[in-house]
Amino acid sequence: MTLKLVVGNKNYSSWSMRPWLALRGCDIAFDETVIPLYTDDPADKARILKHSPAGKVPILIDGAVTVWDSLAIIEYVAERYPEAKLWPSEAGARAHARSVCAEMHSGFQALRNECPMNLHRPVRPVALSADAKANIARIEDIWRDCRDRYGSGGPFLFGRFGAADAMFAPVVTRFHTFAVPVAAETRAYMETMMAMPAFVAWVEAGLAETWIIERVEKV
Amino acid sequence: MTLKLVVGNKNYSSWSMRPWLALRGCDIAFDETVIPLYTDDPADKARILKHSPAGKVPILIDGAVTVWDSLAIIEYVAERYPEAKLWPSEAGARAHARSVCAEMHSGFQALRNECPMNLHRPVRPVALSADAKANIARIEDIWRDCRDRYGSGGPFLFGRFGAADAMFAPVVTRFHTFAVPVAAETRAYMETMMAMPAFVAWVEAGLAETWIIERVEKV
Repeated sequence: MTLKLVVGNKNYSSWSMRPWLALRGCDIAFDETVIPLYTDDPADKARILKHSPAGKVPILIDGAVTVWDSLAIIEYVAERYPEAKLWPSEAGARAHARSVCAEMHSGFQALRNECPMNLHRPVRPVALSADAKANIARIEDIWRDCRDRYGSGGPFLFGRFGAADAMFAPVVTRFHTFAVPVAAETRAYMETMMAMPAFVAWVEAGLAETWIIERVEKV
Repeated sequence: MTLKLVVGNKNYSSWSMRPWLALRGCDIAFDETVIPLYTDDPADKARILKHSPAGKVPILIDGAVTVWDSLAIIEYVAERYPEAKLWPSEAGARAHARSVCAEMHSGFQALRNECPMNLHRPVRPVALSADAKANIARIEDIWRDCRDRYGSGGPFLFGRFGAADAMFAPVVTRFHTFAVPVAAETRAYMETMMAMPAFVAWVEAGLAETWIIERVEKV
């Protein structure tokens, strides 16, 4: 049975982008259901609740198993498809990858609030708080450190594309859309990510969601 | 080499409580270092940064491997000590456990803000926002659903004590300290947790931190 992934609008749903990219980036087949967010339509909320009592996207359905939350889905996919090597094979590198993913999963609130993912937004800078700037500096440190330690096997955070890249992918769009000033090596990593066919496909699909802009675009 | 766990004050550090309880609750030996939080002493912050560039507790050190963030540490311990069975052995149950842990890890902000873990606080109710009440209702649903589905093997969320119990342990203290009105089955689960020797040991150590109260107790 084919996996089914329930996601929000591709323009806005940073949480949905992560498992979608993990699956597509590893050429794992899945069907997708897109449920619009921010529509104020109770039917949309009801559609999400029908799949998961947590009431949030993304949701992965694999036969009788339902998994929700971006990180839990990625863990599930990593176990189900070990050949995708979403986590590094060496225990120390894997622990490091899980640490940065968890740090992303629960943190960087200021950046997330001030630079929400919005693929349609014209690229231009925004005034950032000290907290958001500290978030950005920390993320640049994470990316630099991972690529310095583990990047000998490829241009991604742990060499080949994996879970950590998927977890940070929405940040790549935020840095890009909000024209965040970053170091050259940060920019190089962003360009690696933005050139991935799976990343391009997500962005193109998000940009095709023209009906969304009329409702909630605030730029 | 013995594992080393760096934690914050036991009175306040809900994030630290989780891996500490996972280790102690499974009788895995470790040394601990307690670094006081909220002291406004740059030396304390420097001590944390010396162990991890994320600048946050908890941190697990296993020889050359450093793991940070409560959830990443629990994943590491689950891999390193499979006999502890921190995750359920059946794939669907394990996916469910990881989903509720991830939901806890990134969510329930209103509850966390309005009912911060503080073991010293006298037990008494507080006025709660609608968002906090919704968080509480969702957590009660999660606990009920897990115990209904998987609780045949014991009184914990997935039968025997595991990662999900550790991740929700600070919520047990919040519900208790803030005298949150809960269903009888929620209370029963709380009592199971609060009776665990490891839980009792954490709370007793937190209550012994009398010097903390003078600095930041605001009740």
